[in-house]
Amino acid sequence: MARAGTLIESVMSDIESKIASRAYLPNTRLPSVRAQAKAMNVSISTVVEAYDRLVAEGRIVSRPGAGFYTSGPIAPLNLNQIGPKVAREIDPLWVSRESLEARAGALMPGCGWLPSEWLYQTGIKRALRSLARTDSPDLTEYASPKGSQTFRHFLQRRLLNQTIDVTPDQIMLTESGTHAIDLIGRFLLSPGDTVLVDDPCYFNFHALLKAHRVQIVGVPYTPNGPDLEQFAHALETHNPRLYLTNSGIHNPTGAQLTPSVAHKLLTLAKASELVIVEDDIFADLESTRSPRLAAFDGLDQVIEIGSFSKTVSASVRCGYIAARLEWIEQLVDLKIATSFSGNRLDSEIVLQTLTDSGYRKHMDKLQTWLAKQRRQTTEKLTRLGIQPWIQPKDGMFLWCQLPDGVNATQLARDCLTQDVVLAPGNVFSQSQNAHDFLRFNVAQCTEPKIFEVLAWALKQQI
Amino acid sequence: MARAGTLIESVMSDIESKIASRAYLPNTRLPSVRAQAKAMNVSISTVVEAYDRLVAEGRIVSRPGAGFYTSGPIAPLNLNQIGPKVAREIDPLWVSRESLEARAGALMPGCGWLPSEWLYQTGIKRALRSLARTDSPDLTEYASPKGSQTFRHFLQRRLLNQTIDVTPDQIMLTESGTHAIDLIGRFLLSPGDTVLVDDPCYFNFHALLKAHRVQIVGVPYTPNGPDLEQFAHALETHNPRLYLTNSGIHNPTGAQLTPSVAHKLLTLAKASELVIVEDDIFADLESTRSPRLAAFDGLDQVIEIGSFSKTVSASVRCGYIAARLEWIEQLVDLKIATSFSGNRLDSEIVLQTLTDSGYRKHMDKLQTWLAKQRRQTTEKLTRLGIQPWIQPKDGMFLWCQLPDGVNATQLARDCLTQDVVLAPGNVFSQSQNAHDFLRFNVAQCTEPKIFEVLAWALKQQI
Repeated sequence: MARAGTLIESVMSDIESKIASRAYLPNTRLPSVRAQAKAMNVSISTVVEAYDRLVAEGRIVSRPGAGFYTSGPIAPLNLNQIGPKVAREIDPLWVSRESLEARAGALMPGCGWLPSEWLYQTGIKRALRSLARTDSPDLTEYASPKGSQTFRHFLQRRLLNQTIDVTPDQIMLTESGTHAIDLIGRFLLSPGDTVLVDDPCYFNFHALLKAHRVQIVGVPYTPNGPDLEQFAHALETHNPRLYLTNSGIHNPTGAQLTPSVAHKLLTLAKASELVIVEDDIFADLESTRSPRLAAFDGLDQVIEIGSFSKTVSASVRCGYIAARLEWIEQLVDLKIATSFSGNRLDSEIVLQTLTDSGYRKHMDKLQTWLAKQRRQTTEKLTRLGIQPWIQPKDGMFLWCQLPDGVNATQLARDCLTQDVVLAPGNVFSQSQNAHDFLRFNVAQCTEPKIFEVLAWALKQQI
Repeated sequence: MARAGTLIESVMSDIESKIASRAYLPNTRLPSVRAQAKAMNVSISTVVEAYDRLVAEGRIVSRPGAGFYTSGPIAPLNLNQIGPKVAREIDPLWVSRESLEARAGALMPGCGWLPSEWLYQTGIKRALRSLARTDSPDLTEYASPKGSQTFRHFLQRRLLNQTIDVTPDQIMLTESGTHAIDLIGRFLLSPGDTVLVDDPCYFNFHALLKAHRVQIVGVPYTPNGPDLEQFAHALETHNPRLYLTNSGIHNPTGAQLTPSVAHKLLTLAKASELVIVEDDIFADLESTRSPRLAAFDGLDQVIEIGSFSKTVSASVRCGYIAARLEWIEQLVDLKIATSFSGNRLDSEIVLQTLTDSGYRKHMDKLQTWLAKQRRQTTEKLTRLGIQPWIQPKDGMFLWCQLPDGVNATQLARDCLTQDVVLAPGNVFSQSQNAHDFLRFNVAQCTEPKIFEVLAWALKQQI
């Protein structure tokens, strides 16, 4: 769909992309030639020619005396046509599909989850057996609108431990963390709104926000949280509606927010009536507590979401939203309208696993193992000239810079031929300035073959 | 929010509702005074006055020389503010929340599902025990993008039995039937599009479509399918994008489509490039096969969706979409963006239950029981002067007309005071012309108290 070449073609391509992304809705009037020329900083005659050619191609229609209109009905929503075209190795949707598609024998040092054997399978199995022995409505009946009350009480205590003050009524269960963010997006966002994300951030945030047809603006992330100056600048320049971040252990950098950054960030957010969605998906991997924006804010402008896909199971789906009561009530309506009922069986399995006496012990063991893996992986990568940006205190991620002149996308392409799936930096970066970064998952880096293939691939470029 | 009174107030209220529903997006230009007056069929001075008052209230702003604009940022999406206000007893969201909220001791002859003890719990428990014995990735790992290949092969055979020709690649698993329709809506619909539904239809279709901010147009349903003349008229008048229906056993009427209506309907749809979403959720309750639009059409313009919440379990979430391959590919991207991964554990539990040797036998028993319940409930209702519209061949629903002069909404209100939850006709009706109808679920009508309370409530009105 992208057109190379002349200015006219670039104007046409811009308009086509706005039609594809529904920034221009079907059967609606396009900006006048004069307004378009000004907005795109091109001459009026360029726009006239571009409009004429689009009319000839049937993409838009001219209504005499009334201007130019998009034609209708629209094409189906195609996420791949929204935004600039990028190499598939850094296309969030391609990367997701590639890593979700089981490839026999492939090694996945770039993927975002723990190997199965490091999850608490014993607890899950125990929960399954225990449910199989009952005639519980958990086996067959719809969930209540907000989800299991016992679970919401459990989450209340859990959030209180992070000094987030909340009542069970302010909590709604969802199918996953992504589902939680998606519902909040449908609740708060309109196409064309601006959303701030960290640069780099969890790559599926980009795909998710594309589906909401909003503008995404990245704020550079520092080892202590987002860069506050840039954050303030983004607030002023873009008047964003939402800031989507992930506290606790930050994905992909492994950084943790400091209290001072958290406080200043919230002060800025307050002044701009910015809503913050804080994704706390890695909470149980933290050995040293870092601050949560929701704790400072008291769930006023901050919405806390989380899930257990990284610590209990990715196949058993369960997440939650904690927010202002009046928002939760409306989110419940949206959840019913769009999925009717939540997953009652899964939330019960997750609850039983989390409250199983062995869970905490398992997490302690897991943290120790991850610490060891972080050390060993750092050593192995350093030997290859690959340098961690910081040494994270917790979690599974190492955000690493490649030797001078090595391009991460090309490296990922080469390693893929050897069945090693990497996560190149730009898949996480809105500004595309992480071309020499890779995210490593230390829990998936136990196979020596990974480092052999990396060494070979590095040689191709140096 | 609704304002009674003068014409000016009604114009204001209409504009406010369009802002709430985001038919008017924030920071965009309102129609000119002249255009608005014409569209609303009121005088120019009425619109001038309405705009001025809305400016005074801060709902819109006047930009000198450029017209009137909605203000921004928008309020969060509130489903309750979209469309006309209705009594809560016929408000789809209220009815859903009421029936999903477990009420100790309440009887629910209006609810849409089978009692737990009539579902195949033995099969579900067997699946849980079998999974608890394995180290299967089904316990912990993400699902593949389209969902379990074995399940999709199973669904292929199942759909072939209904003469729907499909490859496993054309099938994607979802969390539920509602989730399937929601994804299709995000894929195909834009705010302001028109969608046809049956009148009456499954009430959550109304809430779901509200969340997509589309116009809903009801087509009267006859005992053989939608009224074809009205269907053709709706196509001409409204140029709809989609028709959302439920074949097999129709909810709430229990009617089944005839081949002749199916054929003519598809001919009309073809001529208008109308996409049809066919919800086949009650397939396993059918003893006599009725036609499927998808079988006639060969999954060209028809998208088939289904789930197992009515026949296997409502707490184990699993649905599917079968459609053109190129649509499925894009729906997969949308699913990943908005929920990252599907529910692997649940789809495995459902698959094991469906393929359990006892499942078919259980469904046969269930069909016999439902036939008996339909007869007995019909007798009991007829004695009260409540008449089924048709005698359905299959399923759990009886769509019943009340004695002359009895209002279903009032009856539901009265019965609720006695802890009997009814489903009044207008909750299913876009045109609100089913004020003297109720939907009964015969499987939930075994308690004599239901008919005693009904008799008492009828007396209040006659």
